[in-house]
Amino acid sequence: MREVFHEELDGITASLVEMTSLVASAMARATTALLDADLQLAEQVITGDATVDLLRDEIEERAFDVLTRQSPVATDARVIVTTLRIVADLERMGDLALHVAKVARRRYPGKAVPPELTGTLTEMGQVAQRIVAKAGSVVASRDTELASEIEADDDAMDHLHRQLFRVLLEKPWSHGMEAAIDITLCGRYYERYADHAVSVARRVIYLVTGEK
Amino acid sequence: MREVFHEELDGITASLVEMTSLVASAMARATTALLDADLQLAEQVITGDATVDLLRDEIEERAFDVLTRQSPVATDARVIVTTLRIVADLERMGDLALHVAKVARRRYPGKAVPPELTGTLTEMGQVAQRIVAKAGSVVASRDTELASEIEADDDAMDHLHRQLFRVLLEKPWSHGMEAAIDITLCGRYYERYADHAVSVARRVIYLVTGEK
Repeated sequence: MREVFHEELDGITASLVEMTSLVASAMARATTALLDADLQLAEQVITGDATVDLLRDEIEERAFDVLTRQSPVATDARVIVTTLRIVADLERMGDLALHVAKVARRRYPGKAVPPELTGTLTEMGQVAQRIVAKAGSVVASRDTELASEIEADDDAMDHLHRQLFRVLLEKPWSHGMEAAIDITLCGRYYERYADHAVSVARRVIYLVTGEK
Repeated sequence: MREVFHEELDGITASLVEMTSLVASAMARATTALLDADLQLAEQVITGDATVDLLRDEIEERAFDVLTRQSPVATDARVIVTTLRIVADLERMGDLALHVAKVARRRYPGKAVPPELTGTLTEMGQVAQRIVAKAGSVVASRDTELASEIEADDDAMDHLHRQLFRVLLEKPWSHGMEAAIDITLCGRYYERYADHAVSVARRVIYLVTGEK
């Protein structure tokens, strides 16, 4: 019984890793769409979110099926419940990439990001990619060594988020209110995306070490 | 066995209703703190969030305990998994109230909301209260009749959210960038708060009707 359980669990973990790749790619493309005002890419991310949601539904059904059909022991049940939480985080990360893409689309053919913030937003996109890649590794390998790295990356994201506000507040702003609103919202989307990736990693680490 | 299960489930449902009241009260006080620049109230909400988190931990442990000790049948397991999801929504609603309170605290003794937006923010606070109250009723009574009302309230929230942006964009804005950022973020916090309350109601309705 436990052997079947672990086989099914391996399958579910593989799907979780796949879902992590999907939301990583979505945010990478959304960032390019935002910075380059690339409408086609933005549309790709927006329509592509349905694939993320489908994969979520599929993983949830499989996890639930294992949970109820196999009456797992407490430790194994905890793995399943954690899986369901990770799926929820990943689905939300897909939504946040979609929100970034929608900002790009709304401002097309204009650019949502003014020149003095291109650097900061580019870095936020890069940090997002670093964090989600590590979260994926943690899911795949349960490598808890990555934990401290991910916390440092999250600090970097928070730092960039504050820097965004500093540019908005400290210098005279000549790009109008719409750009200010877009930047404020995008800043929030990247920060939340990183938070969810950190949360994915923390959940796995909690499973392995029992420490929150 | 199933009788014990249902007794424990009733206890968990009572705690969920209590948690809904806590996050409703948190957002009500955060709204007053925001509109009246009431620092004491803001601090209350900020420190009070720990109570919400404690209740979440307690409900999660109890739900998990029922799930693993009682090997529930599939329908009952689905109730537990749904409970865990509702708890996550409610915890996030508590966080969003905390974020609103933090905006109020950061701007104290100033007011974060300029006069021409006081009406809209007041209404957003009221709609938030209506939605969370109904979500609480749905949790307590499983009254699916409330479903359509909640969707209409959510539409009202989206309408107010757009109105907020219209004021920011259409009229000359004389309150500076900090106020614009605060309003943009608070708008997002109320909208997300309502989304999570709608999600709570939908999850219960899904349990009762099997329809998503």
